Amino acid sequence: MIVLDVLGVIGTIAFALAGALTGIQKKLDVFGILMLSITTAVGGGILRDMLIGNTPPMAFRDPTFVVISIISAICACLVYQHINRFNNLIQFCDAVGLGAFTAAGANMAILYDINTPFIMIVLGVTTGVGGGIIRDLFVQEIPFVFRKEIYAVAAIVGAASFYYTQAILPDAVPMYLCFVVTSVIRILSIIYDLHLPII
Amino acid sequence: MIVLDVLGVIGTIAFALAGALTGIQKKLDVFGILMLSITTAVGGGILRDMLIGNTPPMAFRDPTFVVISIISAICACLVYQHINRFNNLIQFCDAVGLGAFTAAGANMAILYDINTPFIMIVLGVTTGVGGGIIRDLFVQEIPFVFRKEIYAVAAIVGAASFYYTQAILPDAVPMYLCFVVTSVIRILSIIYDLHLPII
Amino acid sequence: MIVLDVLGVIGTIAFALAGALTGIQKKLDVFGILMLSITTAVGGGILRDMLIGNTPPMAFRDPTFVVISIISAICACLVYQHINRFNNLIQFCDAVGLGAFTAAGANMAILYDINTPFIMIVLGVTTGVGGGIIRDLFVQEIPFVFRKEIYAVAAIVGAASFYYTQAILPDAVPMYLCFVVTSVIRILSIIYDLHLPII
Repeated sequence: MIVLDVLGVIGTIAFALAGALTGIQKKLDVFGILMLSITTAVGGGILRDMLIGNTPPMAFRDPTFVVISIISAICACLVYQHINRFNNLIQFCDAVGLGAFTAAGANMAILYDINTPFIMIVLGVTTGVGGGIIRDLFVQEIPFVFRKEIYAVAAIVGAASFYYTQAILPDAVPMYLCFVVTSVIRILSIIYDLHLPII
Repeated sequence: MIVLDVLGVIGTIAFALAGALTGIQKKLDVFGILMLSITTAVGGGILRDMLIGNTPPMAFRDPTFVVISIISAICACLVYQHINRFNNLIQFCDAVGLGAFTAAGANMAILYDINTPFIMIVLGVTTGVGGGIIRDLFVQEIPFVFRKEIYAVAAIVGAASFYYTQAILPDAVPMYLCFVVTSVIRILSIIYDLHLPII
Repeated sequence: MIVLDVLGVIGTIAFALAGALTGIQKKLDVFGILMLSITTAVGGGILRDMLIGNTPPMAFRDPTFVVISIISAICACLVYQHINRFNNLIQFCDAVGLGAFTAAGANMAILYDINTPFIMIVLGVTTGVGGGIIRDLFVQEIPFVFRKEIYAVAAIVGAASFYYTQAILPDAVPMYLCFVVTSVIRILSIIYDLHLPII
């Protein structure tokens, strides 16, 4: 699990930076920026834990990821003026985070013995995109995953690949496959500017 | 329970159509439309399940209603231009759904042995109107149940009629009474254009 | 606990009045005003109970606080025109409520045997400010705790003082200290018009 932990940390930093930047743009105060940063980073996992009755949520029992979010948010406040230069790097880290969170979330279906394809996808997607949805609701935006990009779809395909390779691939390989599939789809959709159609 | 299941399917279709139409109007992408459709249809039940600790929520353990929502949303996308003609039909089905969802939700108070009038009303109303509230929050509208119509009030009266006839009426009759009372109040409020007062 | 119960009632009234006034300003109907009033008053506690798996939430098992909220909301509707005169009183009661709710919420960490500093702060703050956040989301405002005032910060300092005096002070004294610290910080921030900085 060490590898996924490292990936999770990378993702948490990217998610927390995105949350903090949103907060700064929306003229929130320092507390609001921290809250938005934390929410974006751990909100998806909290939502998933509430859905499966894993209470209190993991993010509250082990504050590591909240602490990482706070440090990221403080960094974002300090280098705010210069952060646009790192836009591509942040988007790349965000894609890594989406993959890591989706894989970890989908894996909870196995740990909780509710290993159906539907629940695995729901838990993966909720963990991956839930934080961003809550952030957007807090700042009064229609959640961006509903509007513009191939984001949740990457998580869905990733989690599905997890489920359907469990019988074929050994040990934790399906989980890593989920991470790779999700992140790669997300990165490709950014590079080639792919979007879902609007009716 | 077969009758209520059929009513629940009718309601799910109506709720999912309403959600999909909202998504199309708000220019969401295809994923957003599907999500809004699913949320409107099963969001109330998920919220109720989280309130009573029934995890993972029923809608995730048995994906039937999610599948119905997805099919309804796809139909809505295909016949979008012509759907205004069916407006009255959809409103009627929506009232049927409100009644069926409220009755099923209120019934959970009995199944979970928390059969007080207050909890039965809360569970009935949450199941009936919760999905619409989440949908409205997602698209940045003040929830319509707070603003305009006799909607939640119909569910409250229905759930109360459920509770207070348990001692008098046999078997599942109070549950069906809840369905009838809720749906009829809702339909009458549409026909006669009844609203709650604004201060 | 009697003292904290009384303080909780004062706070519930203040929170419910604030919710009802928001509803009136936003032109909600009577049901919407009641819902906003109830949500503001008991929403934080419900959120906290969902986070720790205390289901169904206390506010639904014992409807006392919901009943108090409804009565407060009705009073708000009746004396709406004259309520501005009582603005200072309401703000004072709100600060008392924030303290009482934070103390009661933080105390759940002990009752549930999850007595870490982080969880105690999370439960205290969630109980204290959660209802106001949900209210603001319902009426399409960015939650005011993220924007303007020393509000959540008061609850954080209060809950931290609770945790770190447990070893030193006897019995329920740390809980009352939490109440006093939270309320006093909040009141001072109103009197001296203190705000958190914006980046």
